[in-house]
Amino acid sequence: MKHYLSINDIDSLPNWVDEAIALKKSPYGFQHLGKQKTICLLFFNNSLRTRLSTQKAAMYLGMEVMIMNFGSEGWALEYEDGTMMNQGTSEHIKEAARVVSQFCDIVAIRAFAKLEDKITDEAEEVLTGFAKHASIPIVNMESSVAHPLQALADAITLAEHKTKSKPKVVLSWAPHPKALPHAVANSFVQMMKKQEADFIITHPKGYELNPEITNGCQIEYDQETALENADFIYVKNWSSYEDYGQVLHQNTNWMMTEKKLGHAKFMHCLPVRRNVVVEDAVLDKNQSLVIEQANNRTFAAQLVLKKILENHEN
Amino acid sequence: MKHYLSINDIDSLPNWVDEAIALKKSPYGFQHLGKQKTICLLFFNNSLRTRLSTQKAAMYLGMEVMIMNFGSEGWALEYEDGTMMNQGTSEHIKEAARVVSQFCDIVAIRAFAKLEDKITDEAEEVLTGFAKHASIPIVNMESSVAHPLQALADAITLAEHKTKSKPKVVLSWAPHPKALPHAVANSFVQMMKKQEADFIITHPKGYELNPEITNGCQIEYDQETALENADFIYVKNWSSYEDYGQVLHQNTNWMMTEKKLGHAKFMHCLPVRRNVVVEDAVLDKNQSLVIEQANNRTFAAQLVLKKILENHEN
Amino acid sequence: MKHYLSINDIDSLPNWVDEAIALKKSPYGFQHLGKQKTICLLFFNNSLRTRLSTQKAAMYLGMEVMIMNFGSEGWALEYEDGTMMNQGTSEHIKEAARVVSQFCDIVAIRAFAKLEDKITDEAEEVLTGFAKHASIPIVNMESSVAHPLQALADAITLAEHKTKSKPKVVLSWAPHPKALPHAVANSFVQMMKKQEADFIITHPKGYELNPEITNGCQIEYDQETALENADFIYVKNWSSYEDYGQVLHQNTNWMMTEKKLGHAKFMHCLPVRRNVVVEDAVLDKNQSLVIEQANNRTFAAQLVLKKILENHEN
Repeated sequence: MKHYLSINDIDSLPNWVDEAIALKKSPYGFQHLGKQKTICLLFFNNSLRTRLSTQKAAMYLGMEVMIMNFGSEGWALEYEDGTMMNQGTSEHIKEAARVVSQFCDIVAIRAFAKLEDKITDEAEEVLTGFAKHASIPIVNMESSVAHPLQALADAITLAEHKTKSKPKVVLSWAPHPKALPHAVANSFVQMMKKQEADFIITHPKGYELNPEITNGCQIEYDQETALENADFIYVKNWSSYEDYGQVLHQNTNWMMTEKKLGHAKFMHCLPVRRNVVVEDAVLDKNQSLVIEQANNRTFAAQLVLKKILENHEN
Repeated sequence: MKHYLSINDIDSLPNWVDEAIALKKSPYGFQHLGKQKTICLLFFNNSLRTRLSTQKAAMYLGMEVMIMNFGSEGWALEYEDGTMMNQGTSEHIKEAARVVSQFCDIVAIRAFAKLEDKITDEAEEVLTGFAKHASIPIVNMESSVAHPLQALADAITLAEHKTKSKPKVVLSWAPHPKALPHAVANSFVQMMKKQEADFIITHPKGYELNPEITNGCQIEYDQETALENADFIYVKNWSSYEDYGQVLHQNTNWMMTEKKLGHAKFMHCLPVRRNVVVEDAVLDKNQSLVIEQANNRTFAAQLVLKKILENHEN
Repeated sequence: MKHYLSINDIDSLPNWVDEAIALKKSPYGFQHLGKQKTICLLFFNNSLRTRLSTQKAAMYLGMEVMIMNFGSEGWALEYEDGTMMNQGTSEHIKEAARVVSQFCDIVAIRAFAKLEDKITDEAEEVLTGFAKHASIPIVNMESSVAHPLQALADAITLAEHKTKSKPKVVLSWAPHPKALPHAVANSFVQMMKKQEADFIITHPKGYELNPEITNGCQIEYDQETALENADFIYVKNWSSYEDYGQVLHQNTNWMMTEKKLGHAKFMHCLPVRRNVVVEDAVLDKNQSLVIEQANNRTFAAQLVLKKILENHEN
């Protein structure tokens, strides 16, 4: 593995999950790998969990960490080839990516979907620009269409909490006042396709995810039917994909409630809007795994960095 | 001691001051305590001294440091219980505090008074929210009503410079163009109540501090009378407490001058507006202790972190 | 050497360049120098290369690094003596510089020219304010009139790529939509005056640099004549010095092209606007040294820090 850009960079999900759970037990066991290695975290968007967990993961591995809020601390980047740069952008991704590569051994990047134009978002110009022009490995800390560190943390959490080999896992859309990206849902779906499970996606009509990603997945428009006998319910809002970036409605009937949850475990990537996406009673129950999911972000990131460092060593 | 939220978390001020002065002599002597420990500094407001000194203190102890400007880099937090979060806040303190607890061993927080509403400020929702929901120790880097790291640094500075066992110490209000919080004054008063001194507070009528805090202290409205034979004069502006957050007047007669200072030592927490709060001649004299107060911020923070780490060890 | 404020703080440029090239070969060889030493990087302006390379340089030396975006994270500073500070500034440089000196061993500062007033910019109040009032060494990470870390990196790059003892080096002005400072050009000129070269400056009339800096240099207004048989062409925009801070015109004829480049090596400090300052074909050729210049920023900074630490040791 050179880069970690999407779930598809994982060769064997079960092996990765086992290795992450082992790391979690002795996180300081691989400090020799990160010695005299530096990671640079570039944020084009806000972050809490990703910022702290990726930093912590690098520290566990003995790496040095450099952090930049690229938007506010650096220069406005140009991504188009051949542009006459006489407008708002000061530096081309070609230079930026090659320059950053001089100062560190791995670069991790967060750049959200803008939800204005599907083609632009799907081009993932920031992440793919760095992957194309940098000479060092790239880690995706959430791009326009994928959040593979979150999905790996989710896989770890599922593995830790499942009580049967083929649990029923439901990804259930939730209402939200703002238009949110599809990255978390996309990577969760891709991750679920890589493991044994009875997996169902449920959402109102019009909120279908990219069909290339959900291809082969069971989709059920009736939430009650979908949730029946679920072992894990992963709740997440996303805006419309078809009617790109639009909030079609905020149907409050889709909010997750204690009653709907039943005996299932509750999952969400956070941050979460209480009593909009999910009611208080769910989050405040022991059945909620959200804090453990956040904790596992560290070990997901640590595993990815470990694999990159090991690959580099060979 | 679990948290360091206010001066009242100090069991014995004289012992703490002695220990801080010893630390200052060999600050690298306790690196084993911080090994493989991480502190997260969360800033909801600007900072110079607190930012650098707390970071330096953690480094002296061998800790890893993660820093976040929560306001600009994280998510807008909700503090109310039971809110339907369909407005401006994206994450509840319940999740944020528990999530941050996954990534570090101590969290230090700065969140100023907004001076709009006394009840809101006194509720100290940020600090108490973290203290309630985090699973790790919390350090107050200045909250709405207290700045106990500053007051501890002030106690160290007083101890280093006093020439008698019961010095006369005056807290003297000063004019300022902007409405400032009461945190520094409050913690200074609370700290002074924990030691032997002839302590007087002086300010114009209308600028009385919270009477629950100044309870038992001598208050003198005539500055000249108050300053007579002072050994230390601590100058500080604060807005009205009664007429909450208002600048009643900027009476320039209350500015500290070389003449008023006499033979006393001058103290201020910084930043300070020259020739508004205090005239140049005072700050540029050897009698000014302001730089040493700033220096002692490091050892106040280091002592607090050391005590938390030791407590955690036991 | 106490401070590194300008190229004039270099005693022997050839020796420095040799030492930097040696450092580049074994950058981890001097970690004992930086042990228990801290550098504070203060940014009053944006930065990519300087931010990452100076941080990396300090890490190579085993130093701790503290970073502050002073403008957004600290307090607005006052630089005038004797001001009654009842307006927008909260803290005087006298206190800020002395306070920062309590928390670190070296302070590095970036504060660009504002290009509004020549006298103000040439006073370099931020850098000289810190140099005057701090008690620790100061490193210039680009000030109003100088960028000596860039010029030292350029000297290293020239030394690595020259094939004759006295190469022809041309500093060629380029068009740009915005008014840019003179700092990079000034330091490059001063650096070139310290070594053997056939050095020519070329720019349109009206774009003369400060004559005190270019004193003794050959200036040629015809770009074609200037570029003839050049070994290295350093391209850079700057605004007018005479008509201070003005963009007199954006004469696109002055853009660097593949044809003009000939067999010369291309240099630029970055960030660079493609197809405005220089055409794509130049940057995408092997003759471009811009990425190596960026890489050498690390070793320029490391050498400067090493010399300061060694000086401090003696």
